[in-house]
Amino acid sequence: LAEERISRRDGLGELRPAPVVVLVEPQMGENIGASARAMLNFGLSALRLVNPRDGWPNPAATAMASGAAPVIDGAKVFASVPDAIADCQYVVAATARTREMLLPVLTPSEAGAELKARIGRGETCALMFGGERAGLLNEDLMRADALVSIPVNPSFASLNLAQSVVILAYEWALADGRESYQSDLVDAFPAPKEDFERLMEHLIGALDDVNYFFPSGKRPVMVKNLRIALSRAGLTEAEVRSLRGVIKALTRERDGES
Amino acid sequence: LAEERISRRDGLGELRPAPVVVLVEPQMGENIGASARAMLNFGLSALRLVNPRDGWPNPAATAMASGAAPVIDGAKVFASVPDAIADCQYVVAATARTREMLLPVLTPSEAGAELKARIGRGETCALMFGGERAGLLNEDLMRADALVSIPVNPSFASLNLAQSVVILAYEWALADGRESYQSDLVDAFPAPKEDFERLMEHLIGALDDVNYFFPSGKRPVMVKNLRIALSRAGLTEAEVRSLRGVIKALTRERDGES
Repeated sequence: LAEERISRRDGLGELRPAPVVVLVEPQMGENIGASARAMLNFGLSALRLVNPRDGWPNPAATAMASGAAPVIDGAKVFASVPDAIADCQYVVAATARTREMLLPVLTPSEAGAELKARIGRGETCALMFGGERAGLLNEDLMRADALVSIPVNPSFASLNLAQSVVILAYEWALADGRESYQSDLVDAFPAPKEDFERLMEHLIGALDDVNYFFPSGKRPVMVKNLRIALSRAGLTEAEVRSLRGVIKALTRERDGES
Repeated sequence: LAEERISRRDGLGELRPAPVVVLVEPQMGENIGASARAMLNFGLSALRLVNPRDGWPNPAATAMASGAAPVIDGAKVFASVPDAIADCQYVVAATARTREMLLPVLTPSEAGAELKARIGRGETCALMFGGERAGLLNEDLMRADALVSIPVNPSFASLNLAQSVVILAYEWALADGRESYQSDLVDAFPAPKEDFERLMEHLIGALDDVNYFFPSGKRPVMVKNLRIALSRAGLTEAEVRSLRGVIKALTRERDGES
């Protein structure tokens, strides 16, 4: 674990399991550094970056992180959101645009509690944030399991990236310090995102073969809606395997008929 | 009210009554600007600065505040903490050093709830923060009515100034959005700090006259302890007047005897 590596190398103390932080196309190194510092203030240390604008490593990020430089040194860079969350089982995306997606919308406190319950069961979880200019795009949001919205002054709602990170890290730490609650979902250990992605590719490929997406202009929104509906199910690895078996069976049936 | 001025001038919408933010000897303009932005994100707009290191106005603060520049423009500068909180009736000081003072220690959430109850009763309240290097000094803390401590990772506890501001502003806004609770203290409308200061000066002067503070090396700590004990009472204006009458009466008695 990245956490363990950092604590061993830098004597920052034993860090407990915590969510991964994914910054999607962050622009300013200063904000990446300030985010790293905010993370470590509340016991988070695993940082992942998707296409940072100014490349990586970024000296401005290291300078701004000050004592949290080990978080910066341990950061991993990915070319896409699916790559960055491939091993994650539960992803919460921070956004102000909560009405555009049929995903659960959590308060920061609820997000902390949900992450605490899931990490307590051994799931790999992520908090995902968008870049400074536009935040997360819909195509990023739809890869999350839930959205989290920070309740801001509607007249001045533009929250700095590191300020969003610190509020959610703070709520995580509050939840982590509370007694864990027993979730109803305790037996439903979700599949990693990469398994879910393969299921979606399999399904969409099969549907393309039968020209399900009609008219073709509606394909993107139909794909998005399918993805969100299935993602809300929080499918386990076994369920993903079953569903792929279903698709395979239906396809074979059709191929047999044609 | 500063809030009203800002909303009228800049169309930032109607802001509800909220705590004043006092930054004591802040060093970097960037942190003042980031604090102003964090304040306005959660509906706070009245900023007071005690001896900002680089003078005032500070272009770096304005640049960093971006859309919250009106908070910077409306900031007031003071030469001392007592001056900055003279009209305040309740002051919460942010600090990690909570064991050194016999003051109530609140969590950020409790501080939000207490401020909400008091501002709902019409009190002028402040959230006070220290500078980047050392935070608030003991002589600042002892002028507060309560301390608030943000629970951080003990291995990396150094929280950026604007990050502290945003967490407490966020907790204020959460409390402000909840139903107000009825406090037991509803009839105890505290005196402004400047009245309390005059009471303390009066009392200490009277005690100096009778060489109460002995040995003289212990005077500072004895004064501090007296101040904290009396400050915890949350004296009303009427009570401050009564106590000054008591001091006057005792002094007159002694002067008559001598």
